[in-house]
Amino acid sequence: MKPLSDCRVTIVGLGLMGGSLAGALRGQCAEVIGVARREETVVRALEDQLVDAGTCDVADVLPRTDVLVLATPVRTILGQIEALGPRLRDGCLVMDLGSTKQQIVETMARLPERVQPLGAHPMCGKEVSGIEAADPSLYRGCSFILTPLARTSAEGVERGRALVEAVGARPMVLDPARQDRLVATLSHLPYLLACALVLTADATTSKDPAAWEIVASGFRDTSRVAGSDVSMMTDILLTNRAAVGDAVRTFREMLDQLAAWIEQGDEDEMRRALSTCRNERRRMFP
Amino acid sequence: MKPLSDCRVTIVGLGLMGGSLAGALRGQCAEVIGVARREETVVRALEDQLVDAGTCDVADVLPRTDVLVLATPVRTILGQIEALGPRLRDGCLVMDLGSTKQQIVETMARLPERVQPLGAHPMCGKEVSGIEAADPSLYRGCSFILTPLARTSAEGVERGRALVEAVGARPMVLDPARQDRLVATLSHLPYLLACALVLTADATTSKDPAAWEIVASGFRDTSRVAGSDVSMMTDILLTNRAAVGDAVRTFREMLDQLAAWIEQGDEDEMRRALSTCRNERRRMFP
Repeated sequence: MKPLSDCRVTIVGLGLMGGSLAGALRGQCAEVIGVARREETVVRALEDQLVDAGTCDVADVLPRTDVLVLATPVRTILGQIEALGPRLRDGCLVMDLGSTKQQIVETMARLPERVQPLGAHPMCGKEVSGIEAADPSLYRGCSFILTPLARTSAEGVERGRALVEAVGARPMVLDPARQDRLVATLSHLPYLLACALVLTADATTSKDPAAWEIVASGFRDTSRVAGSDVSMMTDILLTNRAAVGDAVRTFREMLDQLAAWIEQGDEDEMRRALSTCRNERRRMFP
Repeated sequence: MKPLSDCRVTIVGLGLMGGSLAGALRGQCAEVIGVARREETVVRALEDQLVDAGTCDVADVLPRTDVLVLATPVRTILGQIEALGPRLRDGCLVMDLGSTKQQIVETMARLPERVQPLGAHPMCGKEVSGIEAADPSLYRGCSFILTPLARTSAEGVERGRALVEAVGARPMVLDPARQDRLVATLSHLPYLLACALVLTADATTSKDPAAWEIVASGFRDTSRVAGSDVSMMTDILLTNRAAVGDAVRTFREMLDQLAAWIEQGDEDEMRRALSTCRNERRRMFP
């Protein structure tokens, strides 16, 4: 298998994630090709020098594609794997950037034998979307999960690792089910809490004009991820229902317990629990 | 009533909030006097030039105090109002920096007639505590709530405003019950969510060594305030039980609804709700 520097890499979807990946890879591969639905996105990617070439029709560029990266919402990725699979050239590495991996890997398993599938999930992002937000430094220093299939060759995984390292991230191989459980608690649950917090303020305090003058930095931080892209998050939540459901249930037990201690005025239990939280949070982020 | 610049201001409690206030006021009043339980804290405040004078015995300095600021946890403030009230000089302005205001204002109402009570709550803070964290710029640009009592004179409120403006903050007069309801949703609820999120991770994913390599920035932000000072937060929650209980109940309804839509795969409702969240969050923090 030829090295990444000799590969032509096609990125489908030029939003925050795809556009940033393109910009980070450009100059490190034979060619970085961007594919977007809208002509103006392709023009912008070329103007911003995020890609070497661009098109709205992926069929045009598949014959020369060595690495295909699907950087679209999860359910779009599922459809694209099915639709594009038969048209890929021999030995093409197919990757994606979706937040949930089990359904994607199951769909990748049905790709033609002559291509190499590799699930991937970079642990970075922002509450802005679209190519306007693309930033080639986005991946620097982040963990980039890779979920190879049983059928993925060592060379396929190696090329995936090379791509991850080329954009400055740390490759990390994980089983898809384990990754989906971890991100349910560490990423999808925080998103739901941020949303429910915003809805709570919307239903209560936001009627009070004083609310937004005094809104505390705690609220700002705790609600930050509620600004995430809606289509992306809808797909993520719908393709990780069981694990997200488990995470929400455990969270609710914890919140109910804290609320009960407050209501009962059980100071000893409160102090113990809040101390555990403080110490754990400090251990997590020293 | 003499202007703030001619006042001797005594600050009881030299942690993050009190130490920062002292440093911000120093040079703008006749004298800034710091009071702490521990001798080493007083020494540190003097060394760091946060105060002009310091003592462990507040009784020493009450005879010359024109403005007394209680910067201790809420239930300590309640005890200090009762204990120090009879020993204050005529016309002394008594303020506090507690996050909850109803109980404090009720206690302040029993102060001797000859002193001026004024509840206060600066909307700033950090997840660090102690005098080591004191920073005279902490209050700059923040909203600083003032909750005068019916008995508080216009001059008393004016001196409070002058103090708030001297440290670079924006004074904002609010009714205590209204302030307690607002901060229950905008500050105390985010804290509880951050804690319950940390407890959820602690009970589930944190057993997996991969968890902390992939922990997303969303988790980091959503859990940030769980690092807050435990004694301070215990007092806040125990003195705002009803409003905090209401905020938790509304939040739980919102979260349950989102979780139900995910479980049922109700994409239309999810999309609508998540769009509302995104738009609201952006409206709140443009």
